[in-house]
Amino acid sequence: MSYVTHLESAIDGTHLPHGELQTLHEGRPLWVRYDLEAVAAAMTKESVAKRDPTMWRYQELLPVDDDTKIASLGEGMTPLLRCERLGAALGLNDLWVKDESQLPTGSFKSRGLAMAVSRANELGVKSVAIPTAGNAGGAMAAYAARVGLDAYVFMPADTPIVNQYEAAYYGAEAFLVDGLITDCGAIVRDGTPHMGWFDVSTLKEPYRIEGKKTMGLELAEQSDWSLPDVILYPTGGGTGLIGMWKAFAELAEIGWLADERRPRMVSCQSDGCAPISTAWSKGERFAEPFPDAATAASGLRVPAAVGDFMILDAVNESGGQARDCPEAFLLAWARRASALEGIAFAPETGACIGVLEMLVEEKAIDPDERVVIFNTGAAQKYVEVIGAEPLSTLPDPVDWAAFSASTT
Amino acid sequence: MSYVTHLESAIDGTHLPHGELQTLHEGRPLWVRYDLEAVAAAMTKESVAKRDPTMWRYQELLPVDDDTKIASLGEGMTPLLRCERLGAALGLNDLWVKDESQLPTGSFKSRGLAMAVSRANELGVKSVAIPTAGNAGGAMAAYAARVGLDAYVFMPADTPIVNQYEAAYYGAEAFLVDGLITDCGAIVRDGTPHMGWFDVSTLKEPYRIEGKKTMGLELAEQSDWSLPDVILYPTGGGTGLIGMWKAFAELAEIGWLADERRPRMVSCQSDGCAPISTAWSKGERFAEPFPDAATAASGLRVPAAVGDFMILDAVNESGGQARDCPEAFLLAWARRASALEGIAFAPETGACIGVLEMLVEEKAIDPDERVVIFNTGAAQKYVEVIGAEPLSTLPDPVDWAAFSASTT
Repeated sequence: MSYVTHLESAIDGTHLPHGELQTLHEGRPLWVRYDLEAVAAAMTKESVAKRDPTMWRYQELLPVDDDTKIASLGEGMTPLLRCERLGAALGLNDLWVKDESQLPTGSFKSRGLAMAVSRANELGVKSVAIPTAGNAGGAMAAYAARVGLDAYVFMPADTPIVNQYEAAYYGAEAFLVDGLITDCGAIVRDGTPHMGWFDVSTLKEPYRIEGKKTMGLELAEQSDWSLPDVILYPTGGGTGLIGMWKAFAELAEIGWLADERRPRMVSCQSDGCAPISTAWSKGERFAEPFPDAATAASGLRVPAAVGDFMILDAVNESGGQARDCPEAFLLAWARRASALEGIAFAPETGACIGVLEMLVEEKAIDPDERVVIFNTGAAQKYVEVIGAEPLSTLPDPVDWAAFSASTT
Repeated sequence: MSYVTHLESAIDGTHLPHGELQTLHEGRPLWVRYDLEAVAAAMTKESVAKRDPTMWRYQELLPVDDDTKIASLGEGMTPLLRCERLGAALGLNDLWVKDESQLPTGSFKSRGLAMAVSRANELGVKSVAIPTAGNAGGAMAAYAARVGLDAYVFMPADTPIVNQYEAAYYGAEAFLVDGLITDCGAIVRDGTPHMGWFDVSTLKEPYRIEGKKTMGLELAEQSDWSLPDVILYPTGGGTGLIGMWKAFAELAEIGWLADERRPRMVSCQSDGCAPISTAWSKGERFAEPFPDAATAASGLRVPAAVGDFMILDAVNESGGQARDCPEAFLLAWARRASALEGIAFAPETGACIGVLEMLVEEKAIDPDERVVIFNTGAAQKYVEVIGAEPLSTLPDPVDWAAFSASTT
């Protein structure tokens, strides 16, 4: 049995029971709350260290009651990689990347959807549905397949092709929609009474946050329970940033953090879709829908986030910022950083690097501070982006003098 | 300092020094040999268990002298996943998949190339080159970038597009060639004296085997040092199968295996490119080049393998087989298995599942035997394969009665 006590409305604090399926309350998300005193008594750092290197090693801080219902593909304990070359390019001496591209399905979406599908499975759901404009559809399809649930995925017609095909390859019923992700969300909502789906849209059920929370738990363990100074995180729906901030609070509550320091959380967007950074710059707690959203970073193309206030609260409590990066810069940074470090940076992560460059120039970050960027997906899944520059064909025979002159 | 004592020609046993760059001897590969008595004295299972979950945890059995020269992206300790649904479809009760798609760059090539690039870096190489028809080029480019080496990648023009673009995205000089991978290999050979490259082609340097060996070390540790009954492995160049068989021999030598049992090693190919299975069926130790090689499993499109005798020796010593699967079956199995388990099976792995189906039908495998399949890459990297069935666009508005009838 888990240590969950109840669910709590993020907008008005109402308590709701966790033993049944829940979605939004008053149109806003729910927090999962635990008996942290009991968790602190049951869980030790030493016991966690001996467990398998997956996100499930933090089981006392996770909401699943019955292990046999877990949908797992071995996700978690992604590497935290020191990046000296990229750091030098940015004027930073202690830069790290947590590389979420090495998760199942090649993106960080696996964490949230492993948890959401596990809990849905545990609560008797037979069929799950999701709107997606990027990596979430494939992740949901994979975990649904893993435990034998039916899966339905709805995507805008301009969703990256790898995301389109992977969902169907994992056996989901996958469809294109003439419209935006919001139109796909409306289809899921409309179809639910007809089809008996459970809707696992971002933050519409309470458990994707708990999956994403494990990014913060892992980062803390990998940092010997002493958190970095700054975290940069690309923000679409914002579940990861919200989840990490919750993780740090829970770790503090159970007494596991080595010191009082909390990272400044920096929410990063593209100037092609910047609702959160726009709201933050105006000092507002709720974001206006961003008009004509357009960015090659498909995961950032979320014009309206139901958890906007949860993101902005976390950013502000942490002393952080919500910023956006010019679209051209984010693409250039993702490519340049991949060549500097050998990490397959997704375009979304390019936004973090672009924002980081701005913050260093503004002296909002000190060169010796420990800075962690989350690489949320594998560049290989963005064929449209990485294929922007086609390769040339070698002449036959090769003129090696000319070849040498052209490449070195 | 490593425990390597020397390199040894696989074809005639000649000893060669390991402190300098080595390629082939008499046109054939080299083994890396260790002082296994010293390894046994230095290394304990308990100390390994406490190390980071990467392939470098087996450092005493690896050839790098200077840790600071290692090119690492956190590779290794990929999950070993129980597959009950796929097992049931095949009539097997104890089927597992080791999921190498979760490595950096999304394929098993990362292990070998992390090791080859690390050793090249340690031995003073500044520039590496590779011919590739699949995932190896991107992996080499990534690890070269990680330690600041120049990288050159040569690919047939019909290489999968993600593989083409990823190499350039990681900063390599990447070119298409009108021809096969053998033509690309000739270009690397011809260009080397002009360009000062080190050639990291499959088995042309001794260390890619040592990287791939870690698949066997991890499998043994994850199996509590008691090996499975059967291993199915897709075979292009064969480094992985050779490396795992070497790993098991070294583990036996240092006394770490729980029993005498060794897996029957099954080398799996497509009938569109089946040089090893053809040689095995004729009882030969060397393979003829396979004419008109054609398979969507790009990693299997290797018509001539310089390590053919090493593959066939391992297969035969183990009491295993080398088999091929009809091309249509391998594609169908990769897709079906992905939908059954939520694992992104590469087409190469489809060949293993097709061969496994044949072996079960032939009663060459007992239903209760423990069987392990290696999934060597992420299906997401094979857009041409997973995109074979384009998605349909939903009508607006949706007729839910018709939708329900068409999908359930």
